Amino acid sequence: MSFADSLRKVQQEQNSLLCIGLDPDPDRLPTHLGTSPRAVLEFNKQIIESTGDLVCAYKMNLAFYEALGDEGWSVIRKTVEAVPGNVVTIGDAKRGDIGNTAERSALALFGDLKFSAVTVNPYMGFDSVEPYLKYRERGVFLLALTSNPGSKDFQRLKAGLKPVYERVVRAARKWNEGGNIGLVVGATHPRELKRIRKLVPTMPLLIPGIGHQGGDVRQVVRYGCDRKGFSAVINVGRSVIFASREKDFTSAVRREAMMVRDEIRMIQAEAFGA
Amino acid sequence: MSFADSLRKVQQEQNSLLCIGLDPDPDRLPTHLGTSPRAVLEFNKQIIESTGDLVCAYKMNLAFYEALGDEGWSVIRKTVEAVPGNVVTIGDAKRGDIGNTAERSALALFGDLKFSAVTVNPYMGFDSVEPYLKYRERGVFLLALTSNPGSKDFQRLKAGLKPVYERVVRAARKWNEGGNIGLVVGATHPRELKRIRKLVPTMPLLIPGIGHQGGDVRQVVRYGCDRKGFSAVINVGRSVIFASREKDFTSAVRREAMMVRDEIRMIQAEAFGA
Repeated sequence: MSFADSLRKVQQEQNSLLCIGLDPDPDRLPTHLGTSPRAVLEFNKQIIESTGDLVCAYKMNLAFYEALGDEGWSVIRKTVEAVPGNVVTIGDAKRGDIGNTAERSALALFGDLKFSAVTVNPYMGFDSVEPYLKYRERGVFLLALTSNPGSKDFQRLKAGLKPVYERVVRAARKWNEGGNIGLVVGATHPRELKRIRKLVPTMPLLIPGIGHQGGDVRQVVRYGCDRKGFSAVINVGRSVIFASREKDFTSAVRREAMMVRDEIRMIQAEAFGA
Repeated sequence: MSFADSLRKVQQEQNSLLCIGLDPDPDRLPTHLGTSPRAVLEFNKQIIESTGDLVCAYKMNLAFYEALGDEGWSVIRKTVEAVPGNVVTIGDAKRGDIGNTAERSALALFGDLKFSAVTVNPYMGFDSVEPYLKYRERGVFLLALTSNPGSKDFQRLKAGLKPVYERVVRAARKWNEGGNIGLVVGATHPRELKRIRKLVPTMPLLIPGIGHQGGDVRQVVRYGCDRKGFSAVINVGRSVIFASREKDFTSAVRREAMMVRDEIRMIQAEAFGA
């Protein structure tokens, strides 16, 4: 089964488009856990345990684990291992390098850490993306139009009649022989999201930027989904995982996650009758 | 002292523009060392010990260490620690992410691993670069025009009258208030290197792609240096570090490194009388 198909499958099974971003800042963990790498792992495990039935995916931004020092890598591995088997794990790595290096990176992320998908920065072009694509069952989300203000600096430059990010979208469509390419499109750009969805009607879109960054859930669901109301992976990070610093933080986390999931569901039902 | 100045200083002191790329594939190490993470560290240490007086910098591509698994991060740290104090250490990380994430990444690379410089992918724009720039004494090399075939896919797209990579060069010039920005320009693009050097007469340029990838040393030195014959950091990887698999591999490595350094020196002397 292609990555696009297996993503759709888990979204239907779980009845959820929600992805929780496990990007733990040690200083914001529940007080009783402390701030050590072990505390981060415990934090992640408890979040996964209390939300595993509410999500289609978890996304881990590797920088937050690199900042933990020597133990960071094993915290990533053990977090991935704690995720229920049917749920997608996205290594938000934003890598991208020449061929022989990208091969090592793909081995690290897919072979060692066993992520079911990763994010890749497309700036270095096809041969920097190809080594990841060779893992046919895994997903490769290329950064197209990111949620941050700096997305205007290069991604929005007009190259001929099309902005650079649209060139990435069109390249992704061309390179997608294995059905395992996806795109990252920030929730802060609803108009462009709509246009991108038209260009790639069934491709998985990873959409960060609702919550803290201000993206609108309604537009994200309406514009980001495929025609059946799936294939959009809607990421929420800080507003869910840092919902409480109390000992029973998982109940607040679960409540918060459920609220977002249900809001998404409602809009999904309205718009697609799904 | 700005990073650009301190780079020039070490290049003069060491009388070398050579950077050795420590990108160890465990399967290509000298046979007696084995293939473990510990073997990689030993390999790096011996290379550094036998070439420390011949280089201005060592560059470590992080993907090669990530592929080592849990111990990779500490191998990076211990390798950086083994580099003589005056020599620049470049973390070839090619990171780039939204602000709060880039802050964690900068902390990991500069605060924890203590690299004196890193490479950053500029695709996500200014706010993804800024957190690295805040470390005023450290260098930040932005990918402009990379050495690989895929550099044509997006970097060379014309955005208005200028290719995208030139927009990066111009942005780098504008963002360089602290004198700590550099650019990555592949040795495989000599004409563009010449043009970029005109746009940024004194900015550090990290130039990979001679040796295995086929870039021409003569053109790289002539076109990549500033007017006094410095500020180009010329990276050589595989052809030096894998010069021999014998027990006394360090003599072959040293010989190979010296040959490249001297070739660079000769061209430097011809072209700049340095």
